[in-house]
Amino acid sequence: MDIFELSRVLNRSNDSKIVLLVADGIGGLPLEPGGRTELETASTPNLDALAAKNVCGLLTPVLPGITPGSGPGHVSLFGYDPLEYQIGRGVLEALGIDFDLGPNDVAARGNFCTVDSAGNITDRRAGRIPSDKCAELVEKLRSIRLDGAEVLLEPGVEHRFVLVLRGEGLGGDVEDTDPQATGVPPLKPVARNPESQRTAEAAAHFVAQAAEVLKREQPANMLTLRGFAQRPLIPTMEDVFGVKTAAIAVYPMYRGLARLVGMEILPKVANLEEQVRCLREHWDRFDFFFVHFKYTDSTGEDGDFDAKVRRIEEFDAYLPRFADLKPDVLIVTGDHSTPAKLKSHSWHPVPVLLAASTCRPDRVTRFAESDCIQGGLGQIEGRYLLPLALAHAERLQKFGA
Amino acid sequence: MDIFELSRVLNRSNDSKIVLLVADGIGGLPLEPGGRTELETASTPNLDALAAKNVCGLLTPVLPGITPGSGPGHVSLFGYDPLEYQIGRGVLEALGIDFDLGPNDVAARGNFCTVDSAGNITDRRAGRIPSDKCAELVEKLRSIRLDGAEVLLEPGVEHRFVLVLRGEGLGGDVEDTDPQATGVPPLKPVARNPESQRTAEAAAHFVAQAAEVLKREQPANMLTLRGFAQRPLIPTMEDVFGVKTAAIAVYPMYRGLARLVGMEILPKVANLEEQVRCLREHWDRFDFFFVHFKYTDSTGEDGDFDAKVRRIEEFDAYLPRFADLKPDVLIVTGDHSTPAKLKSHSWHPVPVLLAASTCRPDRVTRFAESDCIQGGLGQIEGRYLLPLALAHAERLQKFGA
Repeated sequence: MDIFELSRVLNRSNDSKIVLLVADGIGGLPLEPGGRTELETASTPNLDALAAKNVCGLLTPVLPGITPGSGPGHVSLFGYDPLEYQIGRGVLEALGIDFDLGPNDVAARGNFCTVDSAGNITDRRAGRIPSDKCAELVEKLRSIRLDGAEVLLEPGVEHRFVLVLRGEGLGGDVEDTDPQATGVPPLKPVARNPESQRTAEAAAHFVAQAAEVLKREQPANMLTLRGFAQRPLIPTMEDVFGVKTAAIAVYPMYRGLARLVGMEILPKVANLEEQVRCLREHWDRFDFFFVHFKYTDSTGEDGDFDAKVRRIEEFDAYLPRFADLKPDVLIVTGDHSTPAKLKSHSWHPVPVLLAASTCRPDRVTRFAESDCIQGGLGQIEGRYLLPLALAHAERLQKFGA
Repeated sequence: MDIFELSRVLNRSNDSKIVLLVADGIGGLPLEPGGRTELETASTPNLDALAAKNVCGLLTPVLPGITPGSGPGHVSLFGYDPLEYQIGRGVLEALGIDFDLGPNDVAARGNFCTVDSAGNITDRRAGRIPSDKCAELVEKLRSIRLDGAEVLLEPGVEHRFVLVLRGEGLGGDVEDTDPQATGVPPLKPVARNPESQRTAEAAAHFVAQAAEVLKREQPANMLTLRGFAQRPLIPTMEDVFGVKTAAIAVYPMYRGLARLVGMEILPKVANLEEQVRCLREHWDRFDFFFVHFKYTDSTGEDGDFDAKVRRIEEFDAYLPRFADLKPDVLIVTGDHSTPAKLKSHSWHPVPVLLAASTCRPDRVTRFAESDCIQGGLGQIEGRYLLPLALAHAERLQKFGA
């Protein structure tokens, strides 16, 4: 029996509302010794005021030292053990272009590449062809037909695309064909288990036909495939936690992650202003809302410390608009840290703020990394956040007599 | 899937260097209410300066309330679950005299004792005979020959020696013959499982012959055996974590523990001065160095608070010499606490300091127990330290897409 099973057994319904605001990659690092993190640098009067009256802490998304991708980071915030519910790259790529994967689908990330006359790769990204060229090539590849598997293709950014093989009995465990090197040919798709044999064969036929279609193109005269994966079987948040859930996210990958755990995806929005409005419009229909803010992560990935600070301040400015709806539980956190200093996701714990009339306030008066160390929630694994949200919403019954 | 398996899957190589400085038993307790611990009493300007710029925390070697022996304490610091990888007393004793146990060896700790004419024990330690007398008796016992098992014996300090039975098919699970009481005879060696039946028989024959050899000796006219154990099968740190590892330890037990996890044992050293020099000499050949300092533990075991304070200060004085090598990750911690007040190992969490350009500094400015409570690493199990070291050395890939 773990926290997940306990929550499943103990949850109960009431008319409380929970709002989870995820500022992606919000945790950071100082650029220089003795300096401040992005959050510590930003002026965040609204977050600080909320922190002062409520309870803070730090979340370890997976386990100490582990840097999560977006998949594990979010799965953990949604209350699932990220080590148990793993999401393959192909699936995440498909989610990232709003492709709604079904149970008979195997998704893979595709890259156009350049090969020489001997078939050896000279550029693994085909010179990063423009996205419209990618779309044009994908359209040509759509002519490919396979026995026993439907081929679905969607273009992505630059040299990237998504391949979905749809059919009965297609396993998801196939090795990458991208050799991660130049001067060698693409690898053959190899099944890692008998259930994936037909998938590997279908992929091989697809690649052979694609090579024909692309052979006169330059520079994108070949392709590689990686991250073959099937949509994981995840019980919905409603099943496990007893909450009707909705997602309000600008970017498709986060809508996709929300869809995997059974959230209803609310209409497309472009910014925080529209996210607030969308939340207000659908307020009565759901118990739990996931609101995603991307730019604290993308500015961190760009290594743009100042831009990340500004994005944090933008996010802070909208906080009262969310709070005005008076959710019973309002949570602010991130799915992981993305320090501008590292230009990537990192393993550092993520500040979390939980506001509820039922919380036990601590002495934290500033929503920032060093302050949250002293927070009343302590340093806990991300997967404990959702049960804590339910508890503060009085949605978990007593355990034991 | 746990942190150990994750680290095995995610580790990657680079040219970073990690140095783990273990001040054995460094954690302590105040002697009087309102007083300071040994670390809080000591003047440690170098540790404090390093703490101020980096990140601290507290390690729970095994689990809350559990006092570890040297085995679990170190196994945990090396990244292994000490509950899964257990090291028997006999093995530890053999390691402690630099005996290199093989896969067909069963080791046990031996004690010379005194028995009366009825065969009942009157002194479990034979009056703590001098070590040279012990060596003389062990030499006599080396005449003993057994069918199906080679007998290897090494004298220890005072009444202690190590017995190793070497042979095919010898299991390690045999009950102690030491009754832990006087007025009763030594117990018979009893196998705890069928695989250890032959070991128990060999041990019984050894004891019978030893009784003959010793019968005219005084006071050491008999012996007891305890802690029968085989060398555990532990995957090497290089296999699991992808680091080439070396140990620089003055005392054989710590070299032995390092050897169990596959570390290369660097040439014998006598003190911190030689340890620094050894580290410098072998700097290029390894990724990870374990440097062991014993005297913070032995002074604690002696109950000598002031001596422990001086040993901490001696250790602190050498810190800049280690830091001068500019490891990418420098860690200072202990394998457990040894409060002089208790004159023994204890369960209290152990201060830890992790210095790296990738760390997130906290507000701790003093490397001591009460300060480290506020540290950014939080209070974590010791087995998470090694993955954190790898993360800060950028030796762990992202988990999940």
